Amino acid sequence: MTELEQQQFDHKMMHRALLLARRGLMTTRPNPAVGCVITANNEVIAEGWHHQAGESHAEAHALRIAGRSAKGATAYVTLEPCSHIGRTPPCADALIDAGVARVVVAMRDPNPRVSGNGIRRLEEVGIQVDVGVLQSAAERLNPGFIARMTHQRPWLTLKMATSLDGKTALSDGRSQWITSAEARSDVQFYRAQADAILSGATTVLADNPKLTVRVEQWPKSRQLPEPLKQPVRIIIDSQHRVSDDAKLFESPDPVWLVRTTPGKASRHPHCHELIIAADEKGKVCLKTLMTELANREINQLWTECGANLAGALIEQQLCDRLMIYSSGQILGHFGRSVIDMVEPMNLASAPRFKIIDRRQIGPDQRLVAVPHTQD
Amino acid sequence: MTELEQQQFDHKMMHRALLLARRGLMTTRPNPAVGCVITANNEVIAEGWHHQAGESHAEAHALRIAGRSAKGATAYVTLEPCSHIGRTPPCADALIDAGVARVVVAMRDPNPRVSGNGIRRLEEVGIQVDVGVLQSAAERLNPGFIARMTHQRPWLTLKMATSLDGKTALSDGRSQWITSAEARSDVQFYRAQADAILSGATTVLADNPKLTVRVEQWPKSRQLPEPLKQPVRIIIDSQHRVSDDAKLFESPDPVWLVRTTPGKASRHPHCHELIIAADEKGKVCLKTLMTELANREINQLWTECGANLAGALIEQQLCDRLMIYSSGQILGHFGRSVIDMVEPMNLASAPRFKIIDRRQIGPDQRLVAVPHTQD
Repeated sequence: MTELEQQQFDHKMMHRALLLARRGLMTTRPNPAVGCVITANNEVIAEGWHHQAGESHAEAHALRIAGRSAKGATAYVTLEPCSHIGRTPPCADALIDAGVARVVVAMRDPNPRVSGNGIRRLEEVGIQVDVGVLQSAAERLNPGFIARMTHQRPWLTLKMATSLDGKTALSDGRSQWITSAEARSDVQFYRAQADAILSGATTVLADNPKLTVRVEQWPKSRQLPEPLKQPVRIIIDSQHRVSDDAKLFESPDPVWLVRTTPGKASRHPHCHELIIAADEKGKVCLKTLMTELANREINQLWTECGANLAGALIEQQLCDRLMIYSSGQILGHFGRSVIDMVEPMNLASAPRFKIIDRRQIGPDQRLVAVPHTQD
Repeated sequence: MTELEQQQFDHKMMHRALLLARRGLMTTRPNPAVGCVITANNEVIAEGWHHQAGESHAEAHALRIAGRSAKGATAYVTLEPCSHIGRTPPCADALIDAGVARVVVAMRDPNPRVSGNGIRRLEEVGIQVDVGVLQSAAERLNPGFIARMTHQRPWLTLKMATSLDGKTALSDGRSQWITSAEARSDVQFYRAQADAILSGATTVLADNPKLTVRVEQWPKSRQLPEPLKQPVRIIIDSQHRVSDDAKLFESPDPVWLVRTTPGKASRHPHCHELIIAADEKGKVCLKTLMTELANREINQLWTECGANLAGALIEQQLCDRLMIYSSGQILGHFGRSVIDMVEPMNLASAPRFKIIDRRQIGPDQRLVAVPHTQD
């Protein structure tokens, strides 16, 4: 093969490894999704992907299939092979033991304490290592894991549902339903990708939601993850307003009530309290909360909340992604605004996002926006 | 040709005639844009389109090119040929005199007083007439002309520019600029398609706009119409607040001030007053205004106004199209809402639109929505 052909082949194999990794997207947490392809004489001889934390890593899966053919082979891995003993033995050692001649890595381990160690280990024994093939695609696969490892906070998506004129409800709070059944169904797919769903006591009191992934609303076009892991429900409840009777507790998955001071014990064994320092306004300090959630291995945080908490998250630059579902209704200026926040001093200093995706979801539209960084 | 081949050929020729018609889109008003293709032995022998009111119709152009070859030919016309003597002789007669054997018409004349007359005239002398080929495409070409002829009102587009959270300005009214230079450039293309631009005195006083088609902002990807016809500027000014010093008057094109009672004479010869009956609130009756604008041959009305007038147009169901440019900024709940109107009794009774187009315009997005009709 010429150098160009080799590059093209590498891209193709890494693309395949990324597709394999995607299969674990909703099940590997708190681990990242990883895929691996092993080739010999430019043919695929084995594939693997990480399925669930505690089970084999992608490389181990693929090496098991390759067996002795791994000797002299090339391994394509979407994430730097681990070099430390975690719940499973280190993958770098397994690749060395199997005798692979070359390892192609999409991205380094984002954990600064171990980043580069796996690559170094492979190189030390004379294995050729090429790093960075389809790196940005690999990074997009695990934004939560990367955010937690590099910034000690989860990757936060703020979901909103508005009318065409940016309102979430009539003035008296009536809001069911502004967006369509299709939009609510689409939301299930994103809830299922999250380690946790964040909301506020105001929303719990107003709508009494369960905040679970609803199997009966799962979009027909998507495969249901197996196993379906319900996200932790995290409710900011500084004023101890969430009662034991909330529908939240009907589902057996954990609920974390975030407060600045301890409350009385809940009768529900799956209800936990998270005590977080207050900020200067006496409210839960959101930045401290994010650090604490990262410590608790929350990678992706999906937020469905009222205009107040949404505004605070935007003001404090804690939103990594906005997901805005909007209907075709016009509610007018008496309706409730989607974001409550301190008014910006001027237009130039207003928080700014960049729309990266727009599409039709049933009769509604869905926008995806990310923080705008000055070019 | 088989029947199917003939149908396909007819579609192809009508498509060509529609493309020709489009060339006149910004210059024919108050006439509709019309295109004509003449074929003999299944080959195109002549083409024509209507360029400007007062000049030849599409059929006359094409017949002139075809000359004697028109005898026995087929003519494809995007609109029923006229049968009355207007500014030019009737096209139905010209087609008869030229000896064409068949006329294919995309849509009937929408004017109920003459609709079908041209077709009848052709049929009476034995010409084969086929009506309805690509009819809906032909209808989309001249929505303003059709609305004026069938509903006695212009086809109204309400243009809005908002932040990502549906705000048009900070609480003190600062709004320059929420959307980008690219979005403002895009607007020029739509202003140029309009017979008139509608706004309110509040907007004139706040922003002091010229409301003309700005050649220097014309989008590079679009051809500048030749000649460029500036729309009439129509300002609703019930309280006689627009002064002779407004920038509006710097351009020599007509300005119509809409009032319920006559004001003092303007020093500008291009300033005209339009006296319209008041509605029950003492404001200009918008429905009466629309009828009057149709009488004055306004086909397409492009509206750039404040939240009050926008709300009134929506409440009174006078908007045929919404065009919403939105930026990536978040202004929060203190910002000004884009639509001021009486709150709907409930969500089900809120005015509802259907998004038919969404795209990126520079850093902004643009939505196009039309009134939602129950299916």
